[in-house]
Amino acid sequence: MIKVGILGGGQLGRMLLQAAANYPVETHLMENDPHAPAAHLCHRFVQGDIRDFDAVYQFGKELDAITIEIESVNEDALEKLEKAGVKVYPTPAALRIIKNKIRQKQFYQQQGVPSPAFVVTGDLSELRLQQSFLPAVHKIAEGGYDGRGVQLIHGPGDIEKGFDAPAVLEKMVAIDKEIAQIVAVDRLGNAALYPPVDMVFDPKLNLLDYQVSPAGLSERVLQDVSETALRVVKGLNSPGIFAVELFVDRNGSVFVNETAPRVHNSGHHTIEASFCSQFDMLWRILLDYPLGNPAAILPAAIVNLLGEPGYSGPARYAGLEKVLRMEQAFVHLYGKAETRPGRKMGHVTILDRNVQELVRTAGEIKQELKVIS
Amino acid sequence: MIKVGILGGGQLGRMLLQAAANYPVETHLMENDPHAPAAHLCHRFVQGDIRDFDAVYQFGKELDAITIEIESVNEDALEKLEKAGVKVYPTPAALRIIKNKIRQKQFYQQQGVPSPAFVVTGDLSELRLQQSFLPAVHKIAEGGYDGRGVQLIHGPGDIEKGFDAPAVLEKMVAIDKEIAQIVAVDRLGNAALYPPVDMVFDPKLNLLDYQVSPAGLSERVLQDVSETALRVVKGLNSPGIFAVELFVDRNGSVFVNETAPRVHNSGHHTIEASFCSQFDMLWRILLDYPLGNPAAILPAAIVNLLGEPGYSGPARYAGLEKVLRMEQAFVHLYGKAETRPGRKMGHVTILDRNVQELVRTAGEIKQELKVIS
Repeated sequence: MIKVGILGGGQLGRMLLQAAANYPVETHLMENDPHAPAAHLCHRFVQGDIRDFDAVYQFGKELDAITIEIESVNEDALEKLEKAGVKVYPTPAALRIIKNKIRQKQFYQQQGVPSPAFVVTGDLSELRLQQSFLPAVHKIAEGGYDGRGVQLIHGPGDIEKGFDAPAVLEKMVAIDKEIAQIVAVDRLGNAALYPPVDMVFDPKLNLLDYQVSPAGLSERVLQDVSETALRVVKGLNSPGIFAVELFVDRNGSVFVNETAPRVHNSGHHTIEASFCSQFDMLWRILLDYPLGNPAAILPAAIVNLLGEPGYSGPARYAGLEKVLRMEQAFVHLYGKAETRPGRKMGHVTILDRNVQELVRTAGEIKQELKVIS
Repeated sequence: MIKVGILGGGQLGRMLLQAAANYPVETHLMENDPHAPAAHLCHRFVQGDIRDFDAVYQFGKELDAITIEIESVNEDALEKLEKAGVKVYPTPAALRIIKNKIRQKQFYQQQGVPSPAFVVTGDLSELRLQQSFLPAVHKIAEGGYDGRGVQLIHGPGDIEKGFDAPAVLEKMVAIDKEIAQIVAVDRLGNAALYPPVDMVFDPKLNLLDYQVSPAGLSERVLQDVSETALRVVKGLNSPGIFAVELFVDRNGSVFVNETAPRVHNSGHHTIEASFCSQFDMLWRILLDYPLGNPAAILPAAIVNLLGEPGYSGPARYAGLEKVLRMEQAFVHLYGKAETRPGRKMGHVTILDRNVQELVRTAGEIKQELKVIS
């Protein structure tokens, strides 16, 4: 059987391994925490630091293929593995571009991909020189994840919240919509695009509220979104799954915000809502099978279950019974023993022909279901 | 986290464990073969003989709940576990009725459930006395599985093919359709019925050809099927998932053929075709969650992938690429290293609004995809 490794054992690894069990594949997983959500679902678990060169190289050298579920991995080791003939998807070259925000922004510029204007700041003193560039968003070059590593700098008073480390400062865009476009690319360069996802934010809390797919976009914007996302992915020139996050501004112009070179939160609904989920699709790519069908079976929404503010400790799911009774809801709990404020603990997907109804049910689930301790 | 054990590690266990990863549950599995399809997908794998009293009891005594994916388990140990306070679903009492074909037939009789007329035969000499009862089907009382343990006795010439062991001899019914009705029952006795499945047999080979859900039945027969299946399950008086297989004869009369007290091949399409799959449903029952919604999202067909006659050895999947390209097909391969003639190696589910199209695609998949070595 083909041997495939995953670096990282969180919920993305968990859902990848659920999908792997539809194929004849021997799964290997490296992760520091033996109780991580994915740790028990593989053929071989290796406890180790995915940021460590030797650990990653030793783990990967007996494998046929290797992928990631988080960007913070040792890409030097992946490069050596690639040279040794292991299929590394995404390629280390693509990963290098994406995992450093400065390189990522420069890449968009080189590729002629529309993306918010930016300047590079090496430290806080350089940021202080950019008052005329405000309002802007400061993003640390490396190590950011899930909102960490991003600061809104509305005006001079916010500057000291910025990062005293290499970072990009991006012009704020007057955002009308935030869209995620997941693209799958196989070894031969064939691409498949999922229906785009509308990421709806709570304007007060600046937190992701829910996600709806397909996004309600005009024909023209839809085409811009898919062409722009395809241009990003073709430029990266790597097999894999890519989530391109885009802004649509009030004039209907499309800008790339950022790209993830892996399965992504904005594609979780594809498990139930698509003929081929993003997880299934990545296995097809890793195993050299044909790409699957990304088309939607029904419109879908995703509600993320984050650890409720003020609660840390063994997780409890208040309101779970009520949501389990909802006729068109699919509950996914990631099996994390401990909750913390904002921690991703699960998600609920809703399928409904009627998009208004999706949004109503998403709101109800957000009201009902709370992860507490 | 709640600890749940599964006895048996085949494809049913595999699909159960795929579904388990949507809930916070610690999974334990006992199985003799450490390379069985489900062996790597649990938190704790215990190599052991599920027919052995001590093995099962030791395995189960630290668990909160235990279930089975095959009937040939030690039910005395399950009974002791039940007395010790472990939730055993299905209950040992229900399992005892079902796993012995003589008790199962007597149970239908006691419950007033229509089922083909039968006589009990203790050995071959007793079978020889039943010439006037032919044509009939001889079914061994214990140990049959997947067609093994069943012999068609058309006339006196077939009698020597019968079993020289306790068995039931059932009158042959002029079958118009074979239907499977999956019923879920929770701890409180609430039941949920899946849409019935039409099991279409190849008349030449007497092999299951494909399955279509919902079955094309008149309103009256549909009601008979669900009432009959419910009567069986209520009589068993046990939480769990039950697959009731029924015959519809040429007069539209409904007879129970047999019942399985577990997730079942005829329900595999519920993974993609139902809001709550049979596997998800069993976890809800084991974890004391509310029953899910068994309703169909779309009509579905299942094609079983059996090891091609004449091939034994490391499995290869001829025609796999072509089927993976089909837009509405979902491929499930069970990861068994070795194929053998007739071995269950996987299944393909097809979703389509149009039932004619389902049947056409099922035929095409049967033509294209062969498990060889």
